[in-house]
Amino acid sequence: MPLVTLLTDFGTADGYVGEMKGVLATAAPLATLVDIAHDVMPQDVDGARLAVARYWRRFPAGTVHLVVVDPGVGSARAALAVESDSRFLLGPDNGVLSPALLVPGARVVALPTPAHASATFHGRDVFAPAAARLALGDALDALGAPFSDPVIRRTPEPVRRADGAVQGQVITVDRFGTLVTNLLAPRGGTVEIAGHALTLARAYADVEEGELIALVGSSGLVEIAVRGGNAAEMMRAGRGAPVTLRSPSTSLLA
Amino acid sequence: MPLVTLLTDFGTADGYVGEMKGVLATAAPLATLVDIAHDVMPQDVDGARLAVARYWRRFPAGTVHLVVVDPGVGSARAALAVESDSRFLLGPDNGVLSPALLVPGARVVALPTPAHASATFHGRDVFAPAAARLALGDALDALGAPFSDPVIRRTPEPVRRADGAVQGQVITVDRFGTLVTNLLAPRGGTVEIAGHALTLARAYADVEEGELIALVGSSGLVEIAVRGGNAAEMMRAGRGAPVTLRSPSTSLLA
Amino acid sequence: MPLVTLLTDFGTADGYVGEMKGVLATAAPLATLVDIAHDVMPQDVDGARLAVARYWRRFPAGTVHLVVVDPGVGSARAALAVESDSRFLLGPDNGVLSPALLVPGARVVALPTPAHASATFHGRDVFAPAAARLALGDALDALGAPFSDPVIRRTPEPVRRADGAVQGQVITVDRFGTLVTNLLAPRGGTVEIAGHALTLARAYADVEEGELIALVGSSGLVEIAVRGGNAAEMMRAGRGAPVTLRSPSTSLLA
Repeated sequence: MPLVTLLTDFGTADGYVGEMKGVLATAAPLATLVDIAHDVMPQDVDGARLAVARYWRRFPAGTVHLVVVDPGVGSARAALAVESDSRFLLGPDNGVLSPALLVPGARVVALPTPAHASATFHGRDVFAPAAARLALGDALDALGAPFSDPVIRRTPEPVRRADGAVQGQVITVDRFGTLVTNLLAPRGGTVEIAGHALTLARAYADVEEGELIALVGSSGLVEIAVRGGNAAEMMRAGRGAPVTLRSPSTSLLA
Repeated sequence: MPLVTLLTDFGTADGYVGEMKGVLATAAPLATLVDIAHDVMPQDVDGARLAVARYWRRFPAGTVHLVVVDPGVGSARAALAVESDSRFLLGPDNGVLSPALLVPGARVVALPTPAHASATFHGRDVFAPAAARLALGDALDALGAPFSDPVIRRTPEPVRRADGAVQGQVITVDRFGTLVTNLLAPRGGTVEIAGHALTLARAYADVEEGELIALVGSSGLVEIAVRGGNAAEMMRAGRGAPVTLRSPSTSLLA
Repeated sequence: MPLVTLLTDFGTADGYVGEMKGVLATAAPLATLVDIAHDVMPQDVDGARLAVARYWRRFPAGTVHLVVVDPGVGSARAALAVESDSRFLLGPDNGVLSPALLVPGARVVALPTPAHASATFHGRDVFAPAAARLALGDALDALGAPFSDPVIRRTPEPVRRADGAVQGQVITVDRFGTLVTNLLAPRGGTVEIAGHALTLARAYADVEEGELIALVGSSGLVEIAVRGGNAAEMMRAGRGAPVTLRSPSTSLLA
């Protein structure tokens, strides 16, 4: 019986996630539930999308990923089920599933909205029941009609400037205050942000406590951190902050 | 082997929930543990009660629900085990289990306090061991003596005013800042809160970003939200804030 | 198939924990994953160590505990796997595993760093794969070479003063604002903190709402709390705050 993972922006204290888990446990008692996160910032579709990009293919084939960050719940936005690289994903048609949708061969269907569904909680009434069916072995096509042209959200691409430098930006800030950029790992170079010029280092230990460092993070992207500290707070920088890379071997982000 | 769900106000960083899970895993190795929440506001019995109301019956028959929000731990308050509608619930006698206790046919026993039990952590020493026994198939009656007259906490009921309007209140605020009221879903009408009069809408998409909306939430209760925003912050309103409903078809909350 | 527990300071929203779970689920599909906590304060090795002390032996023999609070990731610090009292633990060599390392008979190996490992995320690339191997039944010795002299961090010991009183300190503050000290449970006595003298009580109910209380907590250590309130905020006290115990039967902390 496959895994069903859950990512939401619901928090847990209100019991909404509990409701979803109850629906799943009732409909697919042998499925294993795995929490990814429920502390995504409310309605932060891009933050959730970047998290999905990190984990969705780390799980075994057959895993069902529920992704419910859904500011448009109850509107005309479609509810999607996706099969991509042998995993399944369910979530609203707002781009949050883009990492899987962009894989060649991804297939998409639109889930119907049951008559009894709440207009504010499709996680419980639309997505969880569909996830249970996939966990039970139903085919994707059994869940809804093929859906074309889903919303795709992309990480902004860096651009090469006339002077040869690459202009990128911060795309997310993690819990440690590390600024994750859209710059792919070069083989050395200098990173400029907010008036600082940082030579790319290898690991946090390359600088002293409290010092700024630029290095290649665990997704292969350039990150700016403060060893033992919080770069976002120290730099007062966040998503969208410009970051420049000067490097002999820079490639542009895919 | 049944599910054992956990709801606490312990947070997780201190390791208290880890201790409870260790006790459960040792005593009932085949039980499946399901986190509901550990981020309930400290000692917020009413918030936990409303969450329990949401999820407890969504889980399959036989599920064991551990609910440890327990400001009175170590006092003379009883420790309860409840069987209601084929589910089991364990928690302190402070009203947090009211949603299950109010179901006709609910049975209640009082758990004895083992001599070694900590006076500050019955979650580990009283409730988790009892949950394990229920998960292993022990009968409710094997756990303690019948207990009558448990503490019941109820959501305050709205009242019909002389002018025909129904006077209710906010009963909880969720993570999105949505104000959940004690007003049952009418078939249309006007909701008044803090000087605003809002026609009941169907879904968030019925208003623009940043606008106030009143609609029927996923538990069937009237809610006031801000599309893409936080109504509690915008209105500076919280639990107890008065809400008036004018509707041709209003029913009073059960 | 054994349990694999996870304690990190990653939060969950960024998807790092999701990546670790995916690695585990792929390599050891039959292992059961149990979240302990991901909300440890960033890089709070001592807080994590105290949490580990609470839960690691509550789990059954064979359990694999992943503990990734790792400010030194990518430096020369070793990555450890420990077998202690029939449980396994994995984590960095920074003292976070001390509670298990201090048990006589504990065995330790150093995990090699795979060539592909990220310099910022050994949780995913070093510790999770090793945890999966232990869950699958590999022997500790198969994971790495014996490692001697791991970093040990200890709770500071109280000292007996010339006047017979015992001088201790606050070692951690829990989510309720309770100040946990390094003073072992005496059989009565007086606790002095920040100008207050408190007779040791038995349970929160021994004082009124909003009042300070000193009592023996669930780990056997003296704690200072405020009934229904937050002692850390009320006293403006935190880790390291001095606490004095006057008692006829005081023992010094182990």
